[in-house]
Amino acid sequence: MILHGYYRSTAAWRVRIALNLKGVAAEHAFHHLRHGGQRASAYALINPQCLVPALEVDNGAVLTQSLAICEWLEETHPDPPLLPGETWQRGRIRAFALAIACDIHPVQNLKVQERLRALGVTDAEVTGWARWVIQEGLEACETLLADGSGPFCFGTAPTLADLCLVPQLYNARRFGCELSHLARLLAAETACNALAPFAAAAPDRQPDAE
Amino acid sequence: MILHGYYRSTAAWRVRIALNLKGVAAEHAFHHLRHGGQRASAYALINPQCLVPALEVDNGAVLTQSLAICEWLEETHPDPPLLPGETWQRGRIRAFALAIACDIHPVQNLKVQERLRALGVTDAEVTGWARWVIQEGLEACETLLADGSGPFCFGTAPTLADLCLVPQLYNARRFGCELSHLARLLAAETACNALAPFAAAAPDRQPDAE
Repeated sequence: MILHGYYRSTAAWRVRIALNLKGVAAEHAFHHLRHGGQRASAYALINPQCLVPALEVDNGAVLTQSLAICEWLEETHPDPPLLPGETWQRGRIRAFALAIACDIHPVQNLKVQERLRALGVTDAEVTGWARWVIQEGLEACETLLADGSGPFCFGTAPTLADLCLVPQLYNARRFGCELSHLARLLAAETACNALAPFAAAAPDRQPDAE
Repeated sequence: MILHGYYRSTAAWRVRIALNLKGVAAEHAFHHLRHGGQRASAYALINPQCLVPALEVDNGAVLTQSLAICEWLEETHPDPPLLPGETWQRGRIRAFALAIACDIHPVQNLKVQERLRALGVTDAEVTGWARWVIQEGLEACETLLADGSGPFCFGTAPTLADLCLVPQLYNARRFGCELSHLARLLAAETACNALAPFAAAAPDRQPDAE
């Protein structure tokens, strides 16, 4: 199978971690988002949303959306679980992941930044926009974890929540967010980055890193 | 259990459909988004994201994020299924739902519109922004269904994909999108709206409708 991605796409990064955690081998095809590679006509045939990631399996079929790919990996390769526990706990993990995947990442990504500039919004305001979205979103995420225990987002092993958190914290730093008070999130990140499947998925470890 | 929502929130609407399809009874608490009810301090204790929906169960525990709530309902009340079929088909259904829930709805919702206005973007440009996000997103959704059969998004019964589609089409019309060429989406909407669980979940059927 082939994972279509980009080294700094936080959504593709989630899937790289999931593949690594589950020990599933994949080829990687990289599409340079800042050069518009995701809008090339050949890629639009793979993913009509012109976004990464997309997972192309051996019969040519394609699955889009990072969380749908992770859920498929979870169903086909259940061990180790990304959604451990009983149904309520699984719901909490998904809710945390979606708080990032729906309400932070798409509202501050490259496409939105480009559209803001087209409306005459200044570079400084675009950076402020991204910082606002991420800061507010991550503070809510910290509160979502308030009643649980670590070191990971939901206990003693990484879950789908951590897969979404680690890349989003990287983006938060790019935009100058204040993170020092988000103790639970930072502790989870530290625990994740000590694990080889997370370290190997980092942007600077990808062949297309600049 | 109590579903915290708002009649015109497309995310809360998805959960209303899911509850109706599965025959699960819930009380409804409404928070007026245009009057800032979702930012009231009492509600922030329920959902730190200050968004609807949130599902409060009888022990006081809360689950946020519409798709996490739907997945929890699917696991606890599997019949009729929102994610029928084998793992790949379930992945395709989730990907379609996420294409709306991540890449359309949060990028055009009330919060983003308010932030655009705060940057000096005109009302006409805000409407144009929402139209752009929804139009481009739904055209990709139409293509995601190109290789399947209807009348619903994925076959002969409604799924999680249809739960997301129907509210988003309602929003598309509010913002003046061109929909007539999206034949598969419109056929799925027609099939859904003929079903009582969808009809009863519509905004104009809610007690807080204006």
